[in-house]
Amino acid sequence: MNTTIEVLNTHRSVRSFKDEELTQTELNSIIEAAYRAPTSINGQQVSVIVIRDPQKKKEIAKIAGGQPWIEKASAFLLFVMDFYKTSLGVEKAQKKQLIHESSEALIVGGVDAGIALGRAMVAAQALGLGVVPIGGIRNDPQAMIDLLKLPPLTFPLTGMCVGKIDKNADQKPRLPLASFRHEEAYHKEELKEMIENYDKTLVEHWKKTGRSDGVSWSESISAPYSKIYFPKVKPVLEKQGFTHDK
Amino acid sequence: MNTTIEVLNTHRSVRSFKDEELTQTELNSIIEAAYRAPTSINGQQVSVIVIRDPQKKKEIAKIAGGQPWIEKASAFLLFVMDFYKTSLGVEKAQKKQLIHESSEALIVGGVDAGIALGRAMVAAQALGLGVVPIGGIRNDPQAMIDLLKLPPLTFPLTGMCVGKIDKNADQKPRLPLASFRHEEAYHKEELKEMIENYDKTLVEHWKKTGRSDGVSWSESISAPYSKIYFPKVKPVLEKQGFTHDK
Repeated sequence: MNTTIEVLNTHRSVRSFKDEELTQTELNSIIEAAYRAPTSINGQQVSVIVIRDPQKKKEIAKIAGGQPWIEKASAFLLFVMDFYKTSLGVEKAQKKQLIHESSEALIVGGVDAGIALGRAMVAAQALGLGVVPIGGIRNDPQAMIDLLKLPPLTFPLTGMCVGKIDKNADQKPRLPLASFRHEEAYHKEELKEMIENYDKTLVEHWKKTGRSDGVSWSESISAPYSKIYFPKVKPVLEKQGFTHDK
Repeated sequence: MNTTIEVLNTHRSVRSFKDEELTQTELNSIIEAAYRAPTSINGQQVSVIVIRDPQKKKEIAKIAGGQPWIEKASAFLLFVMDFYKTSLGVEKAQKKQLIHESSEALIVGGVDAGIALGRAMVAAQALGLGVVPIGGIRNDPQAMIDLLKLPPLTFPLTGMCVGKIDKNADQKPRLPLASFRHEEAYHKEELKEMIENYDKTLVEHWKKTGRSDGVSWSESISAPYSKIYFPKVKPVLEKQGFTHDK
């Protein structure tokens, strides 16, 4: 099999890292992969903050709600939606940037940061390293902004731990491919049945892997998604200049 | 060099495709790579619509503002933010989904679709195929929703053309790595100078590649970003149920 396809097919999130640093070459390759990501209208509205300072990693682990693997990882990469950089270009062309005032900015900022993050993960995994994306930093975006001196018109979207793998993780079962891949149009006919079956499969998986507290997919998403998850996102977005169509 | 790293480093967007279909194996590998993408809290809030129907591709080319490579590509993959699927799970757990009413939903929806798209692109490129992401479908999201029967609580974020490469493209120069990679904190000191230099480099690049109408980066982003780019995004988001903190 094509080695890249193999890397992509065996994806799993790793949270157990050795106490060992990445080489400069490894780190450079990972960031280069993110840097070479395509961006909408070549806007290049993404920046990455590389954090290796133990004190800062400790702080971020706390901000993310207590995730010790952030401290343990060799590096933490923060993916930033960056309409500050673009605003300098727009100003240089003697115009006034308005894009950050629309929900379109959140979509393009999110998608482009996601593409870059996805590529960084693949690069790390191709080098035999372990990675896990960390959305939990949105628990307290202002703390991230203060810690990493993010300017206005930027926002910390998501992070990624990377390090040498200590214990590898299992690949979690997913909703069936048919719930993800739709031919020619969206097909919702059998979704409920697929969710029903997946809920059972996932509970079985947790039992097999020794997590007797593991709940079904429906249960696990219902708590965070039946409320405004990360309520600090909205006020901090606005403070940073992202007023999404106000 | 690691072959995956090489694929990642040589990324370029391809808009010139041969009149030749992808094999089922190729298409399956690309979609599998997207399907195996990690998602925030294992929410799996992404779906992909696979479009090969010539009439539909033609329609999408028009919706995206006239992009003939969409018609020419063997397949067009639409990446959908999918909080419809999650709502079925939340309902099954006898709760009421609220996440889609927050700007957090746009961020997590955007990032997760981006990760999946990034992985699909890498898979295609590893197989020697050409790809180009298409944000232009947000020009008229309602037309995409109607054409592909997208249910409420979903939104068409971005697409991707994939096909056999006819003419390969050049790798475009980017803003310097130092404007993207920030060590331990955001460094804005030299950004203006980097943009100044990049503007010149890009104009040179356009001249060299025969596009005498090619403008600087600052010029090229200033038109779309000094207005609300894709103004139909906001009303259609709201119609679909995404009220971002109203």
